[in-house]
Amino acid sequence: MPIMSSTAKPSPETTDRNPRDMANAIRALAMDAVQRAKSGHPGMPMGMADVATVLFQKFINIDPSRPDWPDRDRFVLSAGHGSMLLYALHHLVGYADMDIEQLKNFRQLGSRTAGHPEYGHALGIETTTGPLGQGLSTAVGMALAERMMHARFGGDLVDHYTYTIVGDGCLMEGISHEAIDLAGTLKLSKLVVLWDDNGISIDGKVDIATATDQVARFKAAGWNTWAVDGHDADAVEAAIAEARKSDKPAFIACKTIIGYGAPNRGGTAKAHGEALGDEEIALAREQLVWKSEPFELPEAVVKGWREVGIRGREARETWEKRLASSAERERFQSAVATTLPSGLAGELASFRQALSADAPKVATRKASEMALEVINRVTDMTIGGSADLTGSNNTLTKGMQSITPDDFSGRYIHYGVREHGMAAAMNGLALHGGFVPYGGTFLVFADYARGAIRLSALMGLRVVYVLTHDSIGLGEDGPTHQPIEHLAMLRATPNLLVFRPADAIETAECWEIALTERHRPSVLALTRQGLPTVRAGDVGENRSARGGYVLKEADGPRDVTIMATGSEVEIALAAAKSLAESGKQAAVLSMPCLDLFEEQDEAYRKSVLGTAPRIAIEAAARLGWDRWIGENGRFIGMTGFGASAPAPQLYEKFGITPQAVVDAALEIA
Amino acid sequence: MPIMSSTAKPSPETTDRNPRDMANAIRALAMDAVQRAKSGHPGMPMGMADVATVLFQKFINIDPSRPDWPDRDRFVLSAGHGSMLLYALHHLVGYADMDIEQLKNFRQLGSRTAGHPEYGHALGIETTTGPLGQGLSTAVGMALAERMMHARFGGDLVDHYTYTIVGDGCLMEGISHEAIDLAGTLKLSKLVVLWDDNGISIDGKVDIATATDQVARFKAAGWNTWAVDGHDADAVEAAIAEARKSDKPAFIACKTIIGYGAPNRGGTAKAHGEALGDEEIALAREQLVWKSEPFELPEAVVKGWREVGIRGREARETWEKRLASSAERERFQSAVATTLPSGLAGELASFRQALSADAPKVATRKASEMALEVINRVTDMTIGGSADLTGSNNTLTKGMQSITPDDFSGRYIHYGVREHGMAAAMNGLALHGGFVPYGGTFLVFADYARGAIRLSALMGLRVVYVLTHDSIGLGEDGPTHQPIEHLAMLRATPNLLVFRPADAIETAECWEIALTERHRPSVLALTRQGLPTVRAGDVGENRSARGGYVLKEADGPRDVTIMATGSEVEIALAAAKSLAESGKQAAVLSMPCLDLFEEQDEAYRKSVLGTAPRIAIEAAARLGWDRWIGENGRFIGMTGFGASAPAPQLYEKFGITPQAVVDAALEIA
Repeated sequence: MPIMSSTAKPSPETTDRNPRDMANAIRALAMDAVQRAKSGHPGMPMGMADVATVLFQKFINIDPSRPDWPDRDRFVLSAGHGSMLLYALHHLVGYADMDIEQLKNFRQLGSRTAGHPEYGHALGIETTTGPLGQGLSTAVGMALAERMMHARFGGDLVDHYTYTIVGDGCLMEGISHEAIDLAGTLKLSKLVVLWDDNGISIDGKVDIATATDQVARFKAAGWNTWAVDGHDADAVEAAIAEARKSDKPAFIACKTIIGYGAPNRGGTAKAHGEALGDEEIALAREQLVWKSEPFELPEAVVKGWREVGIRGREARETWEKRLASSAERERFQSAVATTLPSGLAGELASFRQALSADAPKVATRKASEMALEVINRVTDMTIGGSADLTGSNNTLTKGMQSITPDDFSGRYIHYGVREHGMAAAMNGLALHGGFVPYGGTFLVFADYARGAIRLSALMGLRVVYVLTHDSIGLGEDGPTHQPIEHLAMLRATPNLLVFRPADAIETAECWEIALTERHRPSVLALTRQGLPTVRAGDVGENRSARGGYVLKEADGPRDVTIMATGSEVEIALAAAKSLAESGKQAAVLSMPCLDLFEEQDEAYRKSVLGTAPRIAIEAAARLGWDRWIGENGRFIGMTGFGASAPAPQLYEKFGITPQAVVDAALEIA
Repeated sequence: MPIMSSTAKPSPETTDRNPRDMANAIRALAMDAVQRAKSGHPGMPMGMADVATVLFQKFINIDPSRPDWPDRDRFVLSAGHGSMLLYALHHLVGYADMDIEQLKNFRQLGSRTAGHPEYGHALGIETTTGPLGQGLSTAVGMALAERMMHARFGGDLVDHYTYTIVGDGCLMEGISHEAIDLAGTLKLSKLVVLWDDNGISIDGKVDIATATDQVARFKAAGWNTWAVDGHDADAVEAAIAEARKSDKPAFIACKTIIGYGAPNRGGTAKAHGEALGDEEIALAREQLVWKSEPFELPEAVVKGWREVGIRGREARETWEKRLASSAERERFQSAVATTLPSGLAGELASFRQALSADAPKVATRKASEMALEVINRVTDMTIGGSADLTGSNNTLTKGMQSITPDDFSGRYIHYGVREHGMAAAMNGLALHGGFVPYGGTFLVFADYARGAIRLSALMGLRVVYVLTHDSIGLGEDGPTHQPIEHLAMLRATPNLLVFRPADAIETAECWEIALTERHRPSVLALTRQGLPTVRAGDVGENRSARGGYVLKEADGPRDVTIMATGSEVEIALAAAKSLAESGKQAAVLSMPCLDLFEEQDEAYRKSVLGTAPRIAIEAAARLGWDRWIGENGRFIGMTGFGASAPAPQLYEKFGITPQAVVDAALEIA
């Protein structure tokens, strides 16, 4: 067992700034709220109460009366199951919406105190956490955003820390490696990670599953490190003070006892994820010398906690004076609001006109780069990057400088071969404010980033995933690189827009929608192979915004309706032409975004879909298409994994050809 | 630039065992095959040719004439884009199916030489690689399997190494952290990892994206480490020799020049992923003093390479003598074949009978444990585990001992909070032979394991994913823990069976199918909450094997057909009862596996689905259900993310109730 330090020992009286009592207030609220809910995780809040108290009492700059003050410190509870730590802190420092009733309703329907911290559910929750490792990795994005805003606006306006508390689980997850390697490489010196080193995981002692020396691991990744007794307030304070001066990201291992204060369950896995029970809570009250009833707090303790906010308010007011007198004020405020310039729509409209005139045959990944050339010229809020596939994802536009540890004024991030870390960092960039991040990898490797993509959607963040090489059309790299189920997987995800544009014009349209959607992330599924322009001459309206539309109406009443996305629209058009030669009239629908199509009113959808038999073409899994083709429709696509060969041969091999469409049409029409 | 060592310098004559010439044979085959395909990755094979030559010439125990010899060393090319290294090696050592025509047809349709190594496409390919980090993590599973088989059968029968070549990308991916931490914890001393430390990634020099000291990192994870010049054959040989004696897993950093031999592109990102071009190849031939024409090899070099197989054959023959005289022979052979005991079906049938009599109300995660109690009693090939959720996943049955670094005779693996690493390790266990691995986590964290789950499916491995807490029914943990899109994501994956049983009887049935399916992985989506037995009295046949069936026929002609899976079958039954009271006759279908239902003949499917209007109920995304409900059907399920509250309130909140089904039925029936 770790040493129990002096500051954590019971003291006979309660004074307003006694850190032990302040910490015990957290412990009491956590164990009582979990007990009342009969569900939750008391162990972590009780174990980390001392560390959190030091962090909040001595260091953190937040103002509960202005939770969105841009230069506040960011605090991320990466070990999100310990949500009662956060809710207790928010109650104690005085966030207006975190009254005691919220704590009494922990984990209940409609309360702000969800099982895990949910961004947007209560003031001051900086990000959603719970899936382990995400908080840490998102915090890396926030700390990166701080450095980038600092580079743009200077230390008078931007100069804050990002603190995060992580658990053993966060550090076992693979995403933690991606995050700490990225943070170490970029020397994110204002990031301070506090590790709840309690030696316990759900299955028992943590050493049954990990032998990693975490301090050595973080050192190897380019961090400065400290190791302290997490119940020794002075030691914690000294470490945080040094960490704040670090020239690298800082890792503080805090040796703690899980469920600190619970005499029987403390220090064991039993403290982690269930209510302690009335008896054990009574014993803990005795051991902690905590005499208040559940959900009651000594006035002096509350007073001590409220000083956190008083300090924060003063800091905020001083900062506001600096802002008021800053020449950068307007530009800064517009950046913080992350409102894209109004001129963007016009520029993109002109760009579509030019494309219509040129009718280029380009891969949509290249078309995406062309659209980005326009977008990145109009705004500097867009931040590009790729998981080491820059030349393939076409995410780097002219003149974009890379972010380096010595210069954060650039706009392009080399995320390394780290799809998950990239996605989480983009979430952090978006949450911080000031930026619209986009990042590239191959569509198939959305698999690797799934955990963080889901959080983009759950939080409603404007993050754009540029996912190229979107089908068997990538050719020779073979089945491991050819997405099949990925469009279905992404379309099934709530609040995520999945675009698969058919040509350069639709690609520009989809980019415009992705940037305009402030509260939904977007996926752009883009081809490796070249595609002809199919929308030339029809660029007045952003037709992709309706999700699906009639690209080519039948010549007379429809015999059949052929719908397709992306690279398969070309096939649909060829099939329609062929069918016309056999006297069958086919309409061709382009469906760049099924999610948006679904949101259209029924009358529009019916007018597009028509009443003729329908065929859908997509070089991917069928799942999800039956909704649009109906019970007697046909689907031309993939039924298994792909293969390694040049793309045209694969389309032949898997029967995704105009002839296959014609054959199907002649059977049903 | 790293030092060019003496062994890599041109020598005037070609002798049969000159390692430089042997390595140059790999280089020539790689650059010529990529050039011919006009697609591929020459840099890695050329850079690692010296290391691979030492490994194969001096150490590796394989017999190309018996590629499946159970005690062979396993070689995994984790940096799968360097597939030409593997194909060249296989050609040179004399695998019968890797003739020169295969190399000439690199990346062409129907060839065995796919863009990335595909398990099953050619003899001796131990696993599919390409998605970075997977090979390393799968190799950890193989090395673990070796230790476990060794513990069961002794060193006379099982005593081999697992070698893997990894690249910078493998080591940047998060999964690598999970894998190396697991290997270090379990002290997998017969695992040797060779890192192609070439300092180059696709975006340029690797230090733009990573500052990690890899040697220090592996040390921190409990490995022994070496760092050598990868072009110095003697140094590489010495390091491997020591690594083989290591008491921990071994990491050898091999400093190399990517595209070694190519005078202009060598050492640059340009060497990585495209053909060198005729001119550069001619210059490389000069620099390497390689005079043979493309796809031709000096006889002496071939002779040198064939000695690898001769050594391997001798080792195999010696081993076979040991096997022949071993008392364990039959048991060993049966284990290697991984054929489950014939008695299993009978035991499970009796178990279903007992369940039918008891009609327990249990969560299906508990029912899964009950089935596992039967299964794990009948066979010891099943290997359990969980990503630190043992008590929640119910994956540990009575008497199962945990694997520890000191004792590999157990059957249960504490994978730690590492879903991705667990899935990849299970792939390795299944590939190695001898085991049927199953592993648990929450269904929502299938996200974290997606990359490796996809490889289970692509390779057709019998791996069982026990994914509990399968809907909003998990309650208070809230939206981050509540799967919505996950069933769709998994169902869309080819060659993966997704089961969602409705009660204890179906759970036992689904387990039986999962174990019987030798070439498909399975997902069992299981509830946290208790469910009544809905199949009591009807257990003669494994009805889940048809994927969907009529659980309760309507009393007379159907007015409506209600289909559901898992926990929603109970709701369907309640709705049907309610409807009967209003004079509407409803049939209830249980659909535990839509994948298998789809595979049934049309007559069966039609007989089950009937012609009445249909309603589907599933507390998840709609995507995929329209196929079964038809254009006028209804879906009762989730349209967005979940919430944090007790489960019954969530079902009410999201309208997944018998009343909602009744209302829908009355509208359409």
